[in-house]
Amino acid sequence: MNIAGNLLIGQTTVRGSNGATYAIDASTGERMEPPFGGATAQDLDAACALAWTAFDIYRETSLESRAQFLEAIASNILELGDTLIERCVRESGLPRARIEGERARTVGQLNMFAGVVREGDFLDARIDPAQPERKPLPRVDLRMRYIGLGPVAVFGASNFPLAFSVAGGDTASALAAGCPVIVKAHSAHPGTSELVGMAVRKAVKDCGMPEGTFSLLFGSGREIGQGLVRDPRIKAVGFTGSRHAGTELISIGASRSEPIPVYAEMSSINPVLIFPHALESRGDAIARAFVQSLTLGAGQFCTNPGLILAVDGPALDDFIRSASAALGDVPAATMLTPGIQSAFDKAVSNMAAHPHVKTEARGGAASSPNQGQGVLFSTTAQAFLAFAELQEEIFGSSSLIVRCPDLASMLKLVESLEGQLTSALHIDEEDYEDVRAFLPALERRTGRILINGFGTGVEVGHAMVHGGPYPSTADGRSSSVGSLAIERFLRPVSYQDMPDSLLPGALKSSNPLKINRRIDGKIALAQK
Amino acid sequence: MNIAGNLLIGQTTVRGSNGATYAIDASTGERMEPPFGGATAQDLDAACALAWTAFDIYRETSLESRAQFLEAIASNILELGDTLIERCVRESGLPRARIEGERARTVGQLNMFAGVVREGDFLDARIDPAQPERKPLPRVDLRMRYIGLGPVAVFGASNFPLAFSVAGGDTASALAAGCPVIVKAHSAHPGTSELVGMAVRKAVKDCGMPEGTFSLLFGSGREIGQGLVRDPRIKAVGFTGSRHAGTELISIGASRSEPIPVYAEMSSINPVLIFPHALESRGDAIARAFVQSLTLGAGQFCTNPGLILAVDGPALDDFIRSASAALGDVPAATMLTPGIQSAFDKAVSNMAAHPHVKTEARGGAASSPNQGQGVLFSTTAQAFLAFAELQEEIFGSSSLIVRCPDLASMLKLVESLEGQLTSALHIDEEDYEDVRAFLPALERRTGRILINGFGTGVEVGHAMVHGGPYPSTADGRSSSVGSLAIERFLRPVSYQDMPDSLLPGALKSSNPLKINRRIDGKIALAQK
Repeated sequence: MNIAGNLLIGQTTVRGSNGATYAIDASTGERMEPPFGGATAQDLDAACALAWTAFDIYRETSLESRAQFLEAIASNILELGDTLIERCVRESGLPRARIEGERARTVGQLNMFAGVVREGDFLDARIDPAQPERKPLPRVDLRMRYIGLGPVAVFGASNFPLAFSVAGGDTASALAAGCPVIVKAHSAHPGTSELVGMAVRKAVKDCGMPEGTFSLLFGSGREIGQGLVRDPRIKAVGFTGSRHAGTELISIGASRSEPIPVYAEMSSINPVLIFPHALESRGDAIARAFVQSLTLGAGQFCTNPGLILAVDGPALDDFIRSASAALGDVPAATMLTPGIQSAFDKAVSNMAAHPHVKTEARGGAASSPNQGQGVLFSTTAQAFLAFAELQEEIFGSSSLIVRCPDLASMLKLVESLEGQLTSALHIDEEDYEDVRAFLPALERRTGRILINGFGTGVEVGHAMVHGGPYPSTADGRSSSVGSLAIERFLRPVSYQDMPDSLLPGALKSSNPLKINRRIDGKIALAQK
Repeated sequence: MNIAGNLLIGQTTVRGSNGATYAIDASTGERMEPPFGGATAQDLDAACALAWTAFDIYRETSLESRAQFLEAIASNILELGDTLIERCVRESGLPRARIEGERARTVGQLNMFAGVVREGDFLDARIDPAQPERKPLPRVDLRMRYIGLGPVAVFGASNFPLAFSVAGGDTASALAAGCPVIVKAHSAHPGTSELVGMAVRKAVKDCGMPEGTFSLLFGSGREIGQGLVRDPRIKAVGFTGSRHAGTELISIGASRSEPIPVYAEMSSINPVLIFPHALESRGDAIARAFVQSLTLGAGQFCTNPGLILAVDGPALDDFIRSASAALGDVPAATMLTPGIQSAFDKAVSNMAAHPHVKTEARGGAASSPNQGQGVLFSTTAQAFLAFAELQEEIFGSSSLIVRCPDLASMLKLVESLEGQLTSALHIDEEDYEDVRAFLPALERRTGRILINGFGTGVEVGHAMVHGGPYPSTADGRSSSVGSLAIERFLRPVSYQDMPDSLLPGALKSSNPLKINRRIDGKIALAQK
């Protein structure tokens, strides 16, 4: 397939006439062909109209055909082969192995959701049978299932050009839930987006899904991105990006005449707590693992360990020495875009100039344009509590070590933190008793608590929570990774005394879909 | 127990010093003793501080002890006996039988949630076991459970002085979820509130729950109500009331530095669609059942049938004649408060004066103060589509019949409706084919679809959805009635590679809570 720079509005290829933008080769800064035409308000309207028309049909496709559709997207992405990998490497500046791994994850997510759809547990089908003899009043027959919310707008993320973009986690979970998707491509990887978009579009056609099930738009965040969130036909939004852009979209979603959920995953510094025994017994190993996590993918992960908390003392000094040495060995790495790179440099300079912050170490210096140099800072617990700006995320390989006088002040510091995606605890068995006091505070403000690991590397499974209290995400009641993500795009509908022939398959008495259901509140496993 | 007009802040009885208000006997308009002291900002702060301190302890109480606590509340409410019933009848103006029924429902809800808590399915415990041998990377051990969101503010509802007030559905579901509750009592039934509040407080003490698990405040909506929603220690809100007050609270919740969900159940006109065959074959019976539903509880239900859609013609004329005759036989009924009564009168006058609306019938005239007289209006589909004000809820026994030229225009009219709690379809078998075309539109905008019934009488079960798209509720993804309501106050937390001794009981390998869990995505029923 060739990259042509076109919008994909349902099955129609449209040349966007609202200005043109180019991809940038992240490593060289060179402009890449072809130009991408921006969507007009009319293009946006056409995509929304198609999605709206598709919704009622798409959401009632059989579980099997919807599962096959998701699998077809996965297999079409694989068929793009090296064309996709090469373009994605150039646009993102990320190493080939990472992009191949990300493709595997993207395909894996789609296949996992195919399994989730086939099983049908996400429908949460419930039946409370009638009790005509009940006194004082007979009980009606009541049945419930979940349906899709409606068309969903998905924003591609700069740092996951495959796994959180056109056919990434938000799209896969929305499609699995029965919602048509309109993707607003990220300007950092438009060619990658178009290739994947064509793979999705082909699956829509081959699987006989209504054409409005998927559209892909290029264009400005303000015009096309915000325009999508404002459109009355859009009923939910999936976004991964900066806190600034996220809060803007959240506020647009909330101020519509019909407010909608905007699932924005925004910022997190992912505190790492190193407990005294672990620090003493294996500080050096933790330091090296930490630097590896910190510098992975040029630090451009929402789960990047941006904050280390430990009790001050010689063991912490040793830890900092080890981490500094390790960081010194890590060469600078190409960042996703020149904009991200300059924002990183600026934030690092501000941090370095902060009167209460000491620069402990830097990674290898940049050797070509658009590279980010890792950096390690330290400060005191007192300063951290006094200066809110020290808690702000720096997107890239930058981390701040806070020297805490004791565990009590470390806990106090945890209680001062905003909501986080992850928190990581490095502990030995001798630390367990101390850890117990921290768990409630960590549960209250993080979506995932890790032991003796780091948040980078987010497993796509059924028990994963990639979400957390505000501002790490807009809505800590949900996850954007793993099978739980489907729940974001569903709402329950109940049917009272409805004749069997009018009931949806999920609720018919004969259980034609052979799904697990809840009868009078108790799970009744499907007889397969 | 005596009604003293005091605030219940944890186990402390506090005399509110911020002004005093009195209950009004709804039937006579007389002021009732004693005066209720309003909460000050300090009282609010004290209740929030207690709730915050209670949260970490309360949410980790065992399922069994939390279930017993809910049951103790239920039994303490029953022990209030006639003192509660008599006070509630006077404050609400509702008949004794209704209040006794509502008490049964309230107690039933608490006991149902005790069952939900014991069973533990609401924890949605999930385990994705480690796969150390997996290639290319080993898989970590990942476990997930839901925890409570934090302290919840509950607003008592005027129209359900028991079932949606101090120990009503919001409180029961929040307590079941592991969230402490602070209730802002409704000014329409302060004595009822205090009595029930003492029943809850006694259960807190007898069951050894932390004292901040429950507090009850009297005071103004603006100061105490909005103050609760603004307080950073409050993490969710349950509200049933007017659209005006609801949207105000939603907007306060959304504009906090940490936004929180405000589950507001606001307004619904609950369209009733009478299909041609049913109208023809049994219009008279439907008309009489409709008037019964319309006038139940003086029409003061969120599920009151405020809108009738049918195809115009002689059968509809007959229906209107039957309904008018039936309504004429219904005496006026005491409304909840003088404010509600005068708002009803004003809205009815406006509707009657509308140039495109015909007043078809009125119920019996008021014979004492504060009574509402039922009323039936009609209009055309064209007018209904042209004048948005005809879609506004009138709280009380008022309904509008829309004469539709045909089924196609009836469907178009349905597509013009805002989000609704319920929609009811009256159909014969010969109507089924026509009905199919309406179901998608109804699913998209209602929480519950009923066949050959009316929305009043909301069954408290596992398959009930009492919720619907905005503006019927703030968040159509949830239900405020039935076991589903617990999900509003939960968020997921995942634990990665956590040693068994540190894991919460729900996730320990030996399954000490004996709950159903999801292993690698598949339900594994508990071995009890």
